[in-house]
Amino acid sequence: MEELSIVNLLLVLFAAWIGGITAKRMGFPSILGELLIGIVLGPAILGVLDTSEALNILAEIGILFLMAYIGMEINFKDLGKASWAGLLAAIGGFVVPFALGYYTILAFGGTEIAGLFVGIAVGVTSLATKSRILVDLKLLDTRIAYVLMAGALISDTLALIIFAGIIGFVDAGSIDALGLGWVAAKAILFFAFSGLTGVYLFPLIGKLLTKIKLTGRTAHFSIMVIIVLGFAELAELAGLHGILGAFMGGLFIRDGVFSRPVLKEVTGVFHDISIGFLAPIFFVTAGFHVTLEVFQTDLALLVLIIIGAVVGKILGTALFYLPSGYGWREGVTIGTGMNGRGAVEIIIAGIGLQMNIISQEIFSILVFMAISTTLTVPVLLTWTTNWLRKRGELVKQDARKGYLVLGANPLGLYISKQLAQQSEVTLIDSNKDHVNEALAQGLKAIYGNALKEDAFETADALSKHTFIALTGNSEINLLSAQLAYNSFYIPNRIVLMSPVENGAGPNLLNHIEASSLFANKTDMSAWSYKVSAGDFKEGEEKVDKEMTTRDWVKKNSKDREVLPILIRDGHGVKRPFHYNDTIKPGEHVIYIQ
Amino acid sequence: MEELSIVNLLLVLFAAWIGGITAKRMGFPSILGELLIGIVLGPAILGVLDTSEALNILAEIGILFLMAYIGMEINFKDLGKASWAGLLAAIGGFVVPFALGYYTILAFGGTEIAGLFVGIAVGVTSLATKSRILVDLKLLDTRIAYVLMAGALISDTLALIIFAGIIGFVDAGSIDALGLGWVAAKAILFFAFSGLTGVYLFPLIGKLLTKIKLTGRTAHFSIMVIIVLGFAELAELAGLHGILGAFMGGLFIRDGVFSRPVLKEVTGVFHDISIGFLAPIFFVTAGFHVTLEVFQTDLALLVLIIIGAVVGKILGTALFYLPSGYGWREGVTIGTGMNGRGAVEIIIAGIGLQMNIISQEIFSILVFMAISTTLTVPVLLTWTTNWLRKRGELVKQDARKGYLVLGANPLGLYISKQLAQQSEVTLIDSNKDHVNEALAQGLKAIYGNALKEDAFETADALSKHTFIALTGNSEINLLSAQLAYNSFYIPNRIVLMSPVENGAGPNLLNHIEASSLFANKTDMSAWSYKVSAGDFKEGEEKVDKEMTTRDWVKKNSKDREVLPILIRDGHGVKRPFHYNDTIKPGEHVIYIQ
Repeated sequence: MEELSIVNLLLVLFAAWIGGITAKRMGFPSILGELLIGIVLGPAILGVLDTSEALNILAEIGILFLMAYIGMEINFKDLGKASWAGLLAAIGGFVVPFALGYYTILAFGGTEIAGLFVGIAVGVTSLATKSRILVDLKLLDTRIAYVLMAGALISDTLALIIFAGIIGFVDAGSIDALGLGWVAAKAILFFAFSGLTGVYLFPLIGKLLTKIKLTGRTAHFSIMVIIVLGFAELAELAGLHGILGAFMGGLFIRDGVFSRPVLKEVTGVFHDISIGFLAPIFFVTAGFHVTLEVFQTDLALLVLIIIGAVVGKILGTALFYLPSGYGWREGVTIGTGMNGRGAVEIIIAGIGLQMNIISQEIFSILVFMAISTTLTVPVLLTWTTNWLRKRGELVKQDARKGYLVLGANPLGLYISKQLAQQSEVTLIDSNKDHVNEALAQGLKAIYGNALKEDAFETADALSKHTFIALTGNSEINLLSAQLAYNSFYIPNRIVLMSPVENGAGPNLLNHIEASSLFANKTDMSAWSYKVSAGDFKEGEEKVDKEMTTRDWVKKNSKDREVLPILIRDGHGVKRPFHYNDTIKPGEHVIYIQ
Repeated sequence: MEELSIVNLLLVLFAAWIGGITAKRMGFPSILGELLIGIVLGPAILGVLDTSEALNILAEIGILFLMAYIGMEINFKDLGKASWAGLLAAIGGFVVPFALGYYTILAFGGTEIAGLFVGIAVGVTSLATKSRILVDLKLLDTRIAYVLMAGALISDTLALIIFAGIIGFVDAGSIDALGLGWVAAKAILFFAFSGLTGVYLFPLIGKLLTKIKLTGRTAHFSIMVIIVLGFAELAELAGLHGILGAFMGGLFIRDGVFSRPVLKEVTGVFHDISIGFLAPIFFVTAGFHVTLEVFQTDLALLVLIIIGAVVGKILGTALFYLPSGYGWREGVTIGTGMNGRGAVEIIIAGIGLQMNIISQEIFSILVFMAISTTLTVPVLLTWTTNWLRKRGELVKQDARKGYLVLGANPLGLYISKQLAQQSEVTLIDSNKDHVNEALAQGLKAIYGNALKEDAFETADALSKHTFIALTGNSEINLLSAQLAYNSFYIPNRIVLMSPVENGAGPNLLNHIEASSLFANKTDMSAWSYKVSAGDFKEGEEKVDKEMTTRDWVKKNSKDREVLPILIRDGHGVKRPFHYNDTIKPGEHVIYIQ
């Protein structure tokens, strides 16, 4: 048996950890730190670490797992929802830098294949780079965020398909018509076969596993590793690269195939094993293959590639984005957001180097390109979004729509009817009378147990933006909000807390990241009684200076019993009144008393 | 970069999966199937699969992670609690087969070192083998189970320490006094250093991580991989083997160092990555190194080693067990339970082969020994326990003791007082009056929120055997039972379910594997009122034929309102009346009405 050098592996992992943490602390994706520390500690500068066979093998498995994980994280529904604007941005952001990269390589005497490889590397967009920064810049609910995510998704998928074509082409060697046809046929066969397997065979596997009672997480993890490697091998047999297969395998490991909680856990394990262990090995060792000599020998090419990547990406995106009608400024902003390159680019560059399609110099240039473009994202995107924000052109948008309300009691109906004026609202209750009352009032309502997934599925919980639980029982509210969060990823969860002594405390509220409805402990039955008896007055109050909902409650509930129901903003849009919210000047609080 | 053969890895994993599942279905540990399928598909028989450098590297990392996982699963407290009897069984079960193995090898002309290696391999006991079968044979709460677990634990620890000594000795080469002293000094230094690091430095790391807000699971997993590999490297530097370091590293990754929920999740990831992915590669490839020629060339040695292993283990255990005073029959039973060899034995044999200390023939013999001894366990242990059971010598025992009762309401106090006659009972309530009342009645009671871990910790939940939640709110009862289960592993959870419509359903009860108190939905407030007002009669009913608690309730609650509180068995021992229980003939149901 081959001896494994533990110390080498240890040092690489430790370096990756330090690099990753440092980069993250500075607001960059950890891959940036991993690449940089690889360059610094590797042969390029200090020469403390070097690659080894064991590291290469782990790195290779790492990128297979990482691609599978990327596939798992892509949701078909998201792809389907990806807007026209996202498609435009993706195409523009891919094609223009691709062309610039390709012709730059040719102009410097490179081969066509090298040009195509560099083109793809310059064209791709990093998904991981952005989600964090979207949160930091408070962009998550803007149109930009949705276009960016859709754009990166489409651009990566596009890049992988073109990559598949090129890889097939490289493998074929000779380029006669027949050979090319055979290459194409094999690739198409692979995609067709894996698509069909994913759609039709996987659900059967899922059922089989349930049938033979293999429901444990470890067993599922093992099977998914086998599926991912199986698809990787299929791709290799089709003359494509294993990463394409791993990606396809991951793409089809999804809801409906395996139960949602198991899927979530196993995806977590794939995340940990790839991002927490194996993939960093790949990125650090990628740094080992970098040579600094390019700064002397190929400086012009390096500079041109980086400029082409940045300018091509931003201008290409903005240009192709024009037909969307959202304006060139938003196009430029999208372009700056898509300017980062990450895992997929380094993986493609690494494969190019491994297959001797690109030289070590070109590989180094591509790594520096990834580093410098990634560095630009936080800076440029902050600039451009501030610019849009100042001009009032930062448009909000949300793909998930509408409310899911648990508790069709009179208070629940009262709130739902107001929300239903603008949004879709679905109610759930386990009391048939309540459900019938809701239906009679023209609301959508479902009879079901809010602690079971079925009811949520019937209510189309996956498409809902906000979950409100206002049964009289805080613990039911909390448990169902937990289900809404864990199994249906509903982004906003608002929960009524009863004033009952001995009940679940606010610590549980924080635990599931839910907010308290009415920003105060509330006796649902008392208010429901008032509402159903018509024994209440509705009022409105305009707020003059910004304040938290909590402060509003403190200010207004001293001398009278008042229940703030909704907040209406300047555009007439109503939202539920809850703890984690701030009332802006000019907004109205709708209350009952 | 080295090309990874995806297809080879895929086939090995698939084979491991098939072998593992098949073995498990037949009631054996999966390692058995993995070894066998490795022998069948490997060079020994079909020659379809063979080892490769990539597989060896993955297998090596796999055994490091597996040893770390084994270490993580060992609880110091369990080791501390391990009885005098367990220590006797462990020593006897190790020393006697060790001696037999050692002298057999010498008698057949083997080297001393080879003899020592075989001795260890024959002496170890597999931990994983038994927990499943203990459940199947319903032994979990018997003294045998505790002795077996303690015995296997001590025997494995003993084996690893002796292994450390031998490994140091082998590495030293020459065997002069000075050299040996140096070897011993290094080993002692390693154990001292890693012990001190584990006890004093790890908690600081845990605090540091919390301080720099590295609370995510992936970050913790990465750090733990680094810790495990760091300890493995330390062990290598001390002239020991990496698996010892990994084991020590795992041993110190525990409660108090990292928060309990994170620890549980990360241990899960280590479990998945080792048992679900990497370790099976090791066991299948171990099968590749087996040669069937031993059946012709070394049949006598093979048979003698296996007989020595079985007879030595069983007789050695029984013999050394005599001073415990628990009788030779129980000793023999313990011996049959400890007769399996598993992961640790194969790992030690593999290391011996890799270091050229033992030949391929001896290695093969050790693999067959592991297979055949593991095969004997279910058969022999079923025989011996049935034998004890028939003779009425199967003694119950439980290391966890006493009850944790949530809800010091009058009903809770009434039950607690009865249970407190025989066991330790601790009450928790968030109502200070209730707590004071309990204290006034001479019970142990704690003021605290049962949905927070602090209260459980104060109540020493980790040492409790049964958790009873009987607040009037089913959801609080369920949530706290979940906490008792997830964070404090309390083995029995009994929850009062309210008859309130719209409340949490029995599906949640199953989900957390809890049983329903009083085997029926019960209105706590109504009964508490009766009890506090003294407005009730206590009664007893002897049960003549075996029946489930559910049937008792059905039979007795038709024409009168009755609440079964406890079951008293023939020895006067009382237990709470709950759903998942069966009343035996001669037992009494204590009820109030």
